[in-house]
Amino acid sequence: MESSARNGDTVTAALARRLLAMRSAPLSDEAATVGKQCLLDWLGVTLAARREPLVAILTEELARGDNGGSCSLIGLGRRAGLLDAALINGAAGHALDFDDVISPMGHPTAPVAPAVLALAEFLGASGEAVVRAFITGVETECRISALMGPSHYAKGWHTTATFGTLGAAAAAAELLGLDETRLLHALGIAGTQAAGLKCVFGTMSKPLHAGKAAYSGLLAARLAARGFTSSTDILGAGQGFADTQSTTADPAAMDEDRPQPWVTRALFKYHAACYLTHNAIEAANALRRTHALAPEDVEAVLIEVGSVHLGVCNIEAPRTGLECKFSLRMTSALALSGEDTFDDALFSDQTANRPDLTALCARIRVEPTAKSAATRVTVRLTDGREIVGEADVAIPASDLAAQQEKLERKFRHLTRDTLQPTATDVLIGLIRTLDRQPNLDRLFARLAGDSR
Amino acid sequence: MESSARNGDTVTAALARRLLAMRSAPLSDEAATVGKQCLLDWLGVTLAARREPLVAILTEELARGDNGGSCSLIGLGRRAGLLDAALINGAAGHALDFDDVISPMGHPTAPVAPAVLALAEFLGASGEAVVRAFITGVETECRISALMGPSHYAKGWHTTATFGTLGAAAAAAELLGLDETRLLHALGIAGTQAAGLKCVFGTMSKPLHAGKAAYSGLLAARLAARGFTSSTDILGAGQGFADTQSTTADPAAMDEDRPQPWVTRALFKYHAACYLTHNAIEAANALRRTHALAPEDVEAVLIEVGSVHLGVCNIEAPRTGLECKFSLRMTSALALSGEDTFDDALFSDQTANRPDLTALCARIRVEPTAKSAATRVTVRLTDGREIVGEADVAIPASDLAAQQEKLERKFRHLTRDTLQPTATDVLIGLIRTLDRQPNLDRLFARLAGDSR
Repeated sequence: MESSARNGDTVTAALARRLLAMRSAPLSDEAATVGKQCLLDWLGVTLAARREPLVAILTEELARGDNGGSCSLIGLGRRAGLLDAALINGAAGHALDFDDVISPMGHPTAPVAPAVLALAEFLGASGEAVVRAFITGVETECRISALMGPSHYAKGWHTTATFGTLGAAAAAAELLGLDETRLLHALGIAGTQAAGLKCVFGTMSKPLHAGKAAYSGLLAARLAARGFTSSTDILGAGQGFADTQSTTADPAAMDEDRPQPWVTRALFKYHAACYLTHNAIEAANALRRTHALAPEDVEAVLIEVGSVHLGVCNIEAPRTGLECKFSLRMTSALALSGEDTFDDALFSDQTANRPDLTALCARIRVEPTAKSAATRVTVRLTDGREIVGEADVAIPASDLAAQQEKLERKFRHLTRDTLQPTATDVLIGLIRTLDRQPNLDRLFARLAGDSR
Repeated sequence: MESSARNGDTVTAALARRLLAMRSAPLSDEAATVGKQCLLDWLGVTLAARREPLVAILTEELARGDNGGSCSLIGLGRRAGLLDAALINGAAGHALDFDDVISPMGHPTAPVAPAVLALAEFLGASGEAVVRAFITGVETECRISALMGPSHYAKGWHTTATFGTLGAAAAAAELLGLDETRLLHALGIAGTQAAGLKCVFGTMSKPLHAGKAAYSGLLAARLAARGFTSSTDILGAGQGFADTQSTTADPAAMDEDRPQPWVTRALFKYHAACYLTHNAIEAANALRRTHALAPEDVEAVLIEVGSVHLGVCNIEAPRTGLECKFSLRMTSALALSGEDTFDDALFSDQTANRPDLTALCARIRVEPTAKSAATRVTVRLTDGREIVGEADVAIPASDLAAQQEKLERKFRHLTRDTLQPTATDVLIGLIRTLDRQPNLDRLFARLAGDSR
């Protein structure tokens, strides 16, 4: 494990050289587009979380009376110090668990974006530098995920927290322009701080992980820039990160050549229901749109899903809004009826008991399939025709323009109580052109949030 | 592992009940005395570290221009915010690696004292509350060490960092008066942040561990006090602290009845040389004092040490000051010559080449023994007599008054360039009577350090 497959480099040096090679290469349109989409999505879910109790607690503790801070607290109309802003915004961004995913890394944007944005505001960095630093952070997380293999998450570590700390450090190091030696120290300072256990899932400590990862990673890069020292091979050293926290370490997997940066593998959540219902919702939505279906056209529906889904989200006759989120029948009925499953408010007790929906649910059957990871929805129409659709939300979109449209719709939805529509338009435009902005001043002015 | 040996409690609840029982019981004189000795010793090593580069880096990063903070940076004559002060003071206190030890826990005071002192200053807490909170923090670290067993440190975690995070949280929770439920959440928030790898030993990141542990533990308690949530069984839960980071977990060992709090097991370092030379130095010092020896009385010396020591600190003919620190012969020669091995400046290249010392070294033989953990020093005198002494610095002192005297001497030595002698006298007096001080205002006024 001490050296990479490629040459005599240590594991951490092999990663650092990959990251420094990205610094001097042009950024692909695809990577830049998806990177900006991740930031748009993250800003939306962060703004939507502005009234979450955990955000209030962290703000009271870390930014009490401190409006002289250098960095914006997103949507809160107040400021905090550099590191505290990264922590608070980081926790806020993961509070709704509605942020993006890269498989198998975890939630890539949640720890990296808050570190990058706070530091960029602090430094007055350009939009292009922000996009590049963000993509570098995600690349770091995903390559370390490849290094560690499945055992790290399986054992109990929350990869968004642990890989996220290293990702935030690498992103901040990129924005600070650290050379290879200081980058190695930054990764070392970050790796020895990386922490986060899955046993806290379901509590406020899960979003705290993203905030602490942003904080610790940003601290690591800032300290390394000032000459602070650590192990220069935190990933591969004996009693280092992989040695203590993985039984499946694979340096060659980390160092794999890839046609596009890892950020292009980002997946986005569009529905306010259990993630395992999203395939069925997407397939049903596509059928409805393609065939201009109305609920009364539907005679019977068959949903074929992976059998693991049945144990998680197959409540047959949901009675509450929460139960609707874990019901393949109800979520599919909502999609076939043209309801907006983006909308958290849709998942109410009233919805659970709406006669049109329960009648449609009664015509839907769910069956397990071992055939594929995708979910297949077969609709028999009252006119006798049978139409079939499939969806697998674990496959990154190839149509980035369509993805942009969906993400803008999600952003508008999530910020409808926070921002005026005109402000939303401006924000979306600023993020779409982020890599051409000279700095983030206009963006941050809008991100304070309207105070309505 | 889910429940303790004693009753149906979870592992973490069993610990919490132990800590809450301490809150309502009187504090033994022995525990209070040693607790204050730990604080005296820690303040001395922290003041002595005031000019270390890592302290400057952390202060520049975390307390830039921030003299409006609530809490003192020890010896620096400036202030920072609550959490930043805990972090900076915490790293400073471990910078010289000259702070106390409890076997097998690690360095108990380094993560706990900075959290307690910063919070006490912030709250205006009484000296008695400080001593109690400190002892609670140490108890937490040591009981968790007993829970985890030897595998955690052996695998690569720095226990001062990991157990220290939980200890700092419990100490701060004590000072905040958290009830059982909030204490469990505080331990949960702390445990999911606990981190620190041994592969960074020998770099600035080792002392950073103590600072981050103080920061994260204090943050955990402060957030729990505000209603922030976590796992309520961080220690015993599946995918919790022990499950992920120990293969030798033993809840019954954690829950053992003990005659005195763990703090009474504290060991202190008195010599500026490798820890494994301390037995020989102590034995030689005792022989010299008891028999009023002069170097010219010494014909030959035999030092018998555990064989593991031979691999670490048996440089036969040291040529530099650093090599002297790892030479059993030279450190014993210094002790027999009445030199002050407290004094880091003694370990110079000049000392290595002093004719009287090299001549004495030539009369000293080192041999391994398997007989005991103690080191035995046998001196044959020029008058034909043979005198023998033994020492084992891993046995806590029973004569606490003698320990106090040695610690005061160490404190004076460490602070001789930082404080005026009168200020030192006042400080020592304030710490000796800490549990009778209404608050820490006088202490902190002195801890700013003279600006010479």
